[in-house]
Amino acid sequence: MNFENIILNVYKQVKDLDDKGQLPTYIPELKNVNSESFGVYLSSVEEFQFGVGNCYDRFSIQSIAKVLAVSLAYRILGEEIWKRVGVEPSGTSFNSLIQLEADNGIPRNPLINAGAIVIADILLTNLVDAKKDFLEFIRSLSRTKDINYSEKIAASEKQVGFKNVAMCNLIKSFGNIENDPNDVLDFYFNMCSIELNCKELSEVFMFLANDGMTSKGIEILNQSQSKRMNALMQTCGFYDESGEFAFKVGLPGKSGVGGGIVAVHPDNYTIVVWSPKLNKKGNSYKGMKFLEEFTTKTKLSIF
Amino acid sequence: MNFENIILNVYKQVKDLDDKGQLPTYIPELKNVNSESFGVYLSSVEEFQFGVGNCYDRFSIQSIAKVLAVSLAYRILGEEIWKRVGVEPSGTSFNSLIQLEADNGIPRNPLINAGAIVIADILLTNLVDAKKDFLEFIRSLSRTKDINYSEKIAASEKQVGFKNVAMCNLIKSFGNIENDPNDVLDFYFNMCSIELNCKELSEVFMFLANDGMTSKGIEILNQSQSKRMNALMQTCGFYDESGEFAFKVGLPGKSGVGGGIVAVHPDNYTIVVWSPKLNKKGNSYKGMKFLEEFTTKTKLSIF
Amino acid sequence: MNFENIILNVYKQVKDLDDKGQLPTYIPELKNVNSESFGVYLSSVEEFQFGVGNCYDRFSIQSIAKVLAVSLAYRILGEEIWKRVGVEPSGTSFNSLIQLEADNGIPRNPLINAGAIVIADILLTNLVDAKKDFLEFIRSLSRTKDINYSEKIAASEKQVGFKNVAMCNLIKSFGNIENDPNDVLDFYFNMCSIELNCKELSEVFMFLANDGMTSKGIEILNQSQSKRMNALMQTCGFYDESGEFAFKVGLPGKSGVGGGIVAVHPDNYTIVVWSPKLNKKGNSYKGMKFLEEFTTKTKLSIF
Amino acid sequence: MNFENIILNVYKQVKDLDDKGQLPTYIPELKNVNSESFGVYLSSVEEFQFGVGNCYDRFSIQSIAKVLAVSLAYRILGEEIWKRVGVEPSGTSFNSLIQLEADNGIPRNPLINAGAIVIADILLTNLVDAKKDFLEFIRSLSRTKDINYSEKIAASEKQVGFKNVAMCNLIKSFGNIENDPNDVLDFYFNMCSIELNCKELSEVFMFLANDGMTSKGIEILNQSQSKRMNALMQTCGFYDESGEFAFKVGLPGKSGVGGGIVAVHPDNYTIVVWSPKLNKKGNSYKGMKFLEEFTTKTKLSIF
Repeated sequence: MNFENIILNVYKQVKDLDDKGQLPTYIPELKNVNSESFGVYLSSVEEFQFGVGNCYDRFSIQSIAKVLAVSLAYRILGEEIWKRVGVEPSGTSFNSLIQLEADNGIPRNPLINAGAIVIADILLTNLVDAKKDFLEFIRSLSRTKDINYSEKIAASEKQVGFKNVAMCNLIKSFGNIENDPNDVLDFYFNMCSIELNCKELSEVFMFLANDGMTSKGIEILNQSQSKRMNALMQTCGFYDESGEFAFKVGLPGKSGVGGGIVAVHPDNYTIVVWSPKLNKKGNSYKGMKFLEEFTTKTKLSIF
Repeated sequence: MNFENIILNVYKQVKDLDDKGQLPTYIPELKNVNSESFGVYLSSVEEFQFGVGNCYDRFSIQSIAKVLAVSLAYRILGEEIWKRVGVEPSGTSFNSLIQLEADNGIPRNPLINAGAIVIADILLTNLVDAKKDFLEFIRSLSRTKDINYSEKIAASEKQVGFKNVAMCNLIKSFGNIENDPNDVLDFYFNMCSIELNCKELSEVFMFLANDGMTSKGIEILNQSQSKRMNALMQTCGFYDESGEFAFKVGLPGKSGVGGGIVAVHPDNYTIVVWSPKLNKKGNSYKGMKFLEEFTTKTKLSIF
Repeated sequence: MNFENIILNVYKQVKDLDDKGQLPTYIPELKNVNSESFGVYLSSVEEFQFGVGNCYDRFSIQSIAKVLAVSLAYRILGEEIWKRVGVEPSGTSFNSLIQLEADNGIPRNPLINAGAIVIADILLTNLVDAKKDFLEFIRSLSRTKDINYSEKIAASEKQVGFKNVAMCNLIKSFGNIENDPNDVLDFYFNMCSIELNCKELSEVFMFLANDGMTSKGIEILNQSQSKRMNALMQTCGFYDESGEFAFKVGLPGKSGVGGGIVAVHPDNYTIVVWSPKLNKKGNSYKGMKFLEEFTTKTKLSIF
Repeated sequence: MNFENIILNVYKQVKDLDDKGQLPTYIPELKNVNSESFGVYLSSVEEFQFGVGNCYDRFSIQSIAKVLAVSLAYRILGEEIWKRVGVEPSGTSFNSLIQLEADNGIPRNPLINAGAIVIADILLTNLVDAKKDFLEFIRSLSRTKDINYSEKIAASEKQVGFKNVAMCNLIKSFGNIENDPNDVLDFYFNMCSIELNCKELSEVFMFLANDGMTSKGIEILNQSQSKRMNALMQTCGFYDESGEFAFKVGLPGKSGVGGGIVAVHPDNYTIVVWSPKLNKKGNSYKGMKFLEEFTTKTKLSIF
């Protein structure tokens, strides 16, 4: 499989598409980005790497951080974490509170906001200094020291994040948040504000393509846990477009409102696409198009 | 991989488990079955086959038929069918009407009752004699002539199927059923009443493990369509236990209230498990246990 | 209180209003009506009567019949009927199925479609010939022999009434319908098709203004039951505009999709308004305006 | 009508009833009350007054304060307030967030928590010192100087009021809260913590029995507004038991989780009942029984 040619061809094809997406408006600071940015980076388990476009520009990974947070919590607590959060697709849009009331404060899965807030609470309880330790986790996965939270983005989200405040307090009312909601939300907003580029992000996710091991052979999750994280991304990674993504792209993945998408082909590669304008479901317009075309051309999907 | 030994070991282990499942009570005729039955059959794309237990006893495939119905409709109409039904997991229990009202009569996916009723309507419109033609389709896939609808089961379901009547008429009220609801339901109840054994069913599903081709090289779906059917089973095949199945088993699959489960490992094998007692979510208790243990032991899952 | 002058003044004022309502489109036969019709008729408990406009033209009373059906069922069964249907406002639009699933097939109240279908089932079980007996009940209340079901309207509704079919079967699936759904729906559609004029309807409802007694002194309901029927109309008579009606008009009442509205001032009078064009909530646009202005002018409301 | 005898008889009858209610557990401080307390007080528009039992013991009026808050807001803003909150019964239990999402942050009515929070926000914006001014309003209505907020109760509610925090932030996310959620909630919890006895409360509500005027002839609301407040209590005053209360008691009223119930017979009297143990819907068990029996015996209801 000649990944380089396929990536270059599909990149060119999608770059010229009329981008029907829109920049997200609800987080003011996220609008300060070049909306025409478009980058792709693939890292294979056999250490082949290839990138194109704005693949070295950092962007706000936003909800992609949820996969990393739940992986860290899973690493620490093991199967215990599933007492606090489910593994089922939510079926409704990404920040609905209805489900929480129906399910007594147990979020459907850790990749929707409600679930990620519970994971933030778990990390706060189980880490010495959650904010510092989580950042270290990302830095070590990417082997890059200068990765940081964006204080501006975190502050910008906090300023308008009333729905997340609502969610966190609702879960607390059901007893499924242990810490002070303000602390949980502070950590949550920071978590989502981390900035990485396509290359770094593809390296950070490598352990999920490699049965739980980093490319340097460090075990982050065991094989079974790693498979389960991929299954979770497959069924829940794209809010109410998860089925569509499985249907058209056929890989586990996770998107963020910053325009990034990570996809993982287990035992094969990770690929990161970044383009800031979002489709109506809140996923990168060009990112979705790229990945659909890419897996069609490579004829590689997990199905 | 020595499938035989693993199957035998896991079979033995699960057979001795205390079966916490219950026979379904709402379809009277389904209770006339030996509740201790337990069969397994695996067919690989390389023509290896192996079965154990009650793998040659026929059972009512029930909702497993939905995958075959949608495959046939997809074969006939291509991407057109997605105008009538979605591909997203439903997030709620299998026969909820709430979703239909919210989505103006477009069922979430073709593997929940509402969606399968729409597929039945599509087949009624597009086949000369839907009941006869659908049966022929199954017969040819299994290369077995004496496969039939169970009139008793179909009649038994019709007698108590008020919720399905409600669903069909609700969808009709939104304009997404073309035929007379009575005709649609008659075909739907028959579809689900087909009886096959584990071996036959594993052969019928072979085209989904083989990029759309039967073991005799006949193309049922093209490669892309076949991958998409698998993606659909992965995200939607087990009602509100779909995430759990992906998480624990890691294969596309479909269960039926008759106690059967089909799982597909693309490019590898199909496996059918049958045990009539169901867990609280309506999926075979021992079937779920067997497949979870089987994919753990083989370390083969798509993730 | 000089009712005549107030009625004439308000009638004139509302007649000249720009009618922002629309004829209902979903029941084809209901469109065959002069959309400019506007009639009012008041009957006091002291036998004063006064009408204006098209108050002698008959119209399809539609959902107004639900009050008469539940009154008859209440008369026959007493408090027993509240085991089959509630007395709470529904809070959602008039034919939602969501509530039924949440409440296990017990409709919120007898004045929404679901509840009236259960009442139809109760009458079918408890009357010798429900269709004949219900008509006789209306005829005797109005002391008019030539009142009839409209076969055309009933047939027209049946032809498009898939949502009601869905509702009836859903309730049946919960065990709260005793008879064959087809029989229940046939009676239900007929019930709603009865045609009366404003004068007749104001006389039919007189027992609810008169502590349960007709103007001829026949007890239909006892005093307590009669008060309860009025309370029910007050809280549930206008679907999700019930609060608005209580707020602005301040009288118990019931509207129908045929454009009729009955309001009852206990111990005082009944008033019927008819104008076929409906507001967005499905209640007569001019009827609502008339009653709001009428109770403001008379300064008579129950509050 | 000899109110004294009826009150005494019904009081005695209900006092001896086995109280199937429970003290509320979710507000710790509310449990510090004599659970056997039972008081009744009636004030007629003609200045007749009569009380029995613990009618001079103060209790936390809780949600009963919502009627006073909305009356004050209505007095200040007139019909403008209905742009911020509806007048329809909610149909679901008293603190559901589902409705808010469906209705874009406009609460169904001002007597559910969500609506009262919006009213608190309106008062914060429109009063110079909301906390002081609201207390003065209650003091002047009761002509009693030593009425106060209970700091203990307010603090107790704040400590566990995560659901109300969730609600307020959710409404804020839709733009229907103008002030800082913390300030709104602080005022809201204080509002509900006011302590009055049955006599005082019956005097405070007198303006709603008297076409908007206090017994001293001061106009709080105009006649139309007063009628509308009563209509609102009638349809929405008892959460999802509002229909039941209208049905059985037949008077506008409002209950509080402190065990108090106010009922208003327009142009006639106000009556306050207090007994701390609550039925399953959160309304005073004995209070409901008393009022049902009282209106049955007096044969006085508005219907």
